[in-house]
Amino acid sequence: MTYRAPLNDMLLALNHGAGLKAAVEAGHYGDFDPDITAAVLEEAGKFATDVLAPLNKIGDRNGVKLADRQVTTAPGWPDAYKRWTEAGWNAVSGPEAHGGQGLPLAINAACTEIWSASNVAFGLCPLLTLSAIEALDAHGSEELKDIYLGKLISGEWTGTMQLTEPQAGSDVGALRTRAERAADGSYRISGSKIFITYGEHDMTDNIVHFVLARLPDAPAGTKGISLFLIPKFLVNKDGSLGARNDIYATGIEHKLGMHASPTCTMTMGDNGGAIGYLIGEENAGMRCMFTMMNQARLGVGLEGVGVADRAYQQALAYAQERKQGRAVGSKGTGSDAIIAHPDVKRMLMQMRVLTAAARSICYATAVALDVAARAKDPAVRTEAAARGALLTPIAKAFSTDIGNEVAYLGVQIHGGMGFIEETGAAQHYRDARITAIYEGTNGIQAIDLVTRKLGANGGASVFKLLDELTDIVRLVEASNDPAFGTTGAKLRDALGALDRSSRWLLEKLGTAPNDALAGATPYLRLFGSALGGCMLANEALAARSENDGARHVALARFFAETFAVQAPSLEKTVIDGADAVLGAEAVLVA
Amino acid sequence: MTYRAPLNDMLLALNHGAGLKAAVEAGHYGDFDPDITAAVLEEAGKFATDVLAPLNKIGDRNGVKLADRQVTTAPGWPDAYKRWTEAGWNAVSGPEAHGGQGLPLAINAACTEIWSASNVAFGLCPLLTLSAIEALDAHGSEELKDIYLGKLISGEWTGTMQLTEPQAGSDVGALRTRAERAADGSYRISGSKIFITYGEHDMTDNIVHFVLARLPDAPAGTKGISLFLIPKFLVNKDGSLGARNDIYATGIEHKLGMHASPTCTMTMGDNGGAIGYLIGEENAGMRCMFTMMNQARLGVGLEGVGVADRAYQQALAYAQERKQGRAVGSKGTGSDAIIAHPDVKRMLMQMRVLTAAARSICYATAVALDVAARAKDPAVRTEAAARGALLTPIAKAFSTDIGNEVAYLGVQIHGGMGFIEETGAAQHYRDARITAIYEGTNGIQAIDLVTRKLGANGGASVFKLLDELTDIVRLVEASNDPAFGTTGAKLRDALGALDRSSRWLLEKLGTAPNDALAGATPYLRLFGSALGGCMLANEALAARSENDGARHVALARFFAETFAVQAPSLEKTVIDGADAVLGAEAVLVA
Repeated sequence: MTYRAPLNDMLLALNHGAGLKAAVEAGHYGDFDPDITAAVLEEAGKFATDVLAPLNKIGDRNGVKLADRQVTTAPGWPDAYKRWTEAGWNAVSGPEAHGGQGLPLAINAACTEIWSASNVAFGLCPLLTLSAIEALDAHGSEELKDIYLGKLISGEWTGTMQLTEPQAGSDVGALRTRAERAADGSYRISGSKIFITYGEHDMTDNIVHFVLARLPDAPAGTKGISLFLIPKFLVNKDGSLGARNDIYATGIEHKLGMHASPTCTMTMGDNGGAIGYLIGEENAGMRCMFTMMNQARLGVGLEGVGVADRAYQQALAYAQERKQGRAVGSKGTGSDAIIAHPDVKRMLMQMRVLTAAARSICYATAVALDVAARAKDPAVRTEAAARGALLTPIAKAFSTDIGNEVAYLGVQIHGGMGFIEETGAAQHYRDARITAIYEGTNGIQAIDLVTRKLGANGGASVFKLLDELTDIVRLVEASNDPAFGTTGAKLRDALGALDRSSRWLLEKLGTAPNDALAGATPYLRLFGSALGGCMLANEALAARSENDGARHVALARFFAETFAVQAPSLEKTVIDGADAVLGAEAVLVA
Repeated sequence: MTYRAPLNDMLLALNHGAGLKAAVEAGHYGDFDPDITAAVLEEAGKFATDVLAPLNKIGDRNGVKLADRQVTTAPGWPDAYKRWTEAGWNAVSGPEAHGGQGLPLAINAACTEIWSASNVAFGLCPLLTLSAIEALDAHGSEELKDIYLGKLISGEWTGTMQLTEPQAGSDVGALRTRAERAADGSYRISGSKIFITYGEHDMTDNIVHFVLARLPDAPAGTKGISLFLIPKFLVNKDGSLGARNDIYATGIEHKLGMHASPTCTMTMGDNGGAIGYLIGEENAGMRCMFTMMNQARLGVGLEGVGVADRAYQQALAYAQERKQGRAVGSKGTGSDAIIAHPDVKRMLMQMRVLTAAARSICYATAVALDVAARAKDPAVRTEAAARGALLTPIAKAFSTDIGNEVAYLGVQIHGGMGFIEETGAAQHYRDARITAIYEGTNGIQAIDLVTRKLGANGGASVFKLLDELTDIVRLVEASNDPAFGTTGAKLRDALGALDRSSRWLLEKLGTAPNDALAGATPYLRLFGSALGGCMLANEALAARSENDGARHVALARFFAETFAVQAPSLEKTVIDGADAVLGAEAVLVA
């Protein structure tokens, strides 16, 4: 069962759910020609179907091998990566000054979904390169940019993000990797990092590592962290590769999923220290890293969307093919395909609409980041930046939560076959699991949402968004389309719950911050459910005027009646639930 | 990290949540002495901690091997099985007439949780033997019982259940395995079965297969199915083993989890047909099989509870040990254990209360089945049988859903380490996945709940239960204990939602059955949430008078404010959601 990019759904989500069309019409995208969007996505879809999707199971079965500090990826992977970069896919949204195509992030977000759906372990590699590009472009010296940016944008070289150490996971400030100043202005880094994705591989000549480390005289915690660029091979003046640098993969992990993506332990300094170059200022590494992380967080959200869509496509095909039992009222003879059974229909609809909602939220995040970077009016840019910041944790956490839920349902629809690895449904389920953990666990995202994004400006970003969502609900109600069922009422209730719980959390942030933290995760879910529901409704409204209305109205309705409907319950959990959470330690530890 | 049976929680759940104490006091348990319960569970816990728990990871890593139609289990497994049977654990609830200890099912249910928690792939083997015992005892001839029952009860021989064929999964009636009458009154069976758990292994001398097959003149569908006992080795008159029978394992599956449990393809008839003996009447096999399946369904529910508790214990230990970041308001110096962070507290509480609720529901099912079998008053027996029938699909589906959810949270609490197989959290996550599928998928359970259990007697079983649950809520409210927070209100709302959705479904069953089927799964979740919430509240009320009140009141409160609170939303999904479900095919298939 291969993968086909759902181009119509993606374009609808981009243009209407995520607001690309309106932003282009408002002039915020400069000279970007929106007519090319469909063509780009179609080509990306073809490449994914032809080249990446067939390697997904091969990668899972073969995994990666480490021998003599060299990692060998699965058969066919280096060649596929070469074809992928040669076709220009790594450069889609890279800056034009260094060879990128300068297309909007929103287009690249849709492409990222496609790479993730066809082969999430493959797509993870360029995802990190993209983050590296972002950080280098924003904070690196011109000299470093000249040497590294072009190769990273073309994909000739890949990038890594190296934060984690055994004692420093979510708590990045606890890291111990050391950096010493060298006489020539470079640095010598020593220490070790764990969980480094594509820290070593055989797909490119060189790898450019972005490593957080601490100078001898650095302050404690996150204020004493600096970011260094450490190439696997040093680069000569003429751009040719020089000596092997003192950074090596010394272990790879045996993981639940993502078998084809090498997760490395990296060791620096066994031979005097890895030569590194400072990015940005000394002790200002966290700010640079946040640039990388924000980009990566959206990317991981899109992994959730991609894996979900792949799981959905596979489950739908199986449900149309697998015959078991007679459905009530069936007019056929013999057994019906299981899609005829209401409970299977329900599961498929859940998979479809959760995927669609997460897709729209991720795309909307990308549009906001685009507008923040491209709009002429500084006020528009500022507001868009706040919107992008607000949506990023939701894009990451909601989408990866649903990636896991959808992959779970995908296994369920396959019945006993779903538990057999050969079927492939279980791979999606295993692969999805890490997306809720890496680039900041989903709990960290929820805390970010409540404390930094809701709390940032007295809730202004949230209430501005709520106003826009309320307008959508008005349009649903004004449509008087009976096919919407109770969509309008459910969304209105959901927005009310979002409004009230936002206000409650804002108050608690000032008076009893732990009460707010206790409700962070249900609040994020509430937010995603209300937001996603309104976006799908907005897409349905647009589709009604484009002749595909019935389908999208039904999808929006199902989402509202199955997921947005949970918002009032989640509100109660946020508001009434803190006491029982905060008293937990005495309850749990006897 | 080993496993320790949570004896206090188990006894509280048995006696108060599940109502064992009241049933004993009412005389429904005959001469059973409840004072032995704690001692039995304590011994079971010791055996599990010492012998079974250490083999859990070994089994996962080694898996099983098939060569020359022989299956080799993981190192240490045959010996552990031998010790387990020698200690009498297989015989706990078996009939005394054939060497069993005749203890209540409720006690065995608690033991089953313990085996599943310590080593779910191990515990699965005797679970199926228990079902085989039940079917043979209820439907087999005295001759067959004399030969096989004692050995199955002691565990010297194990049993299998063989229903599934490639075209016949949930649709058992589609099976094709053939049975021919032989001159001596036995039968010759040929055909093949898939997904046969412990269909072949090296832990016992003999295996007794219970196989569904079809006679040449049988009616189509489920009315033409007969149940046969097919021993791996024929048994001589003196009880010694005779010739190898014509039934062989010809394949084993590569699965997502439960690696230590061999899942076999069984082939019968390559050498003239496997010799089989009819259980019950010809063409009445489905009734016999249902006897096996009901028992097995409760057992699988307990697997969900067991895996959940194991995942919880591991996550709790990790959360107390792993230090990351400073909690808001922390008075310590340096990093805090992650259990100090509210979001981690919340996850741990979710794990704890979901497990506790599922445990109580499963135990209550066992108590109902006990009373149905043991009470003197036929009216009491009939009512208890209806209660057991009602609770069985909830015990199976709710408990295995939460088994998966809790194992998911267990991985999440471990962060990146959770994705690494060495940690062990991922094994629980993989192992749990099948429990929502086998012995009737959870969708099948939900349909059974709505159509056969709610629908059976105009909803009488449900409304009787609702009355009892309402009494619990009254007691919570009457306690005026502020520590209950909004528990009373949340449970009252949940019972209202259960009442209304039950009435709606009953009406639809008559007029528009597909509408009822569309809401089956959210209805089961609603039912489990309301029921589990009331049971935990009842346990809290009991614990208040036994000096452990504060802990259990807090648990009941958390469950009410986080899970029972979802009932009104689920009600809306049941009642408003059918249209969008039933129209799905046109939406999903372009």
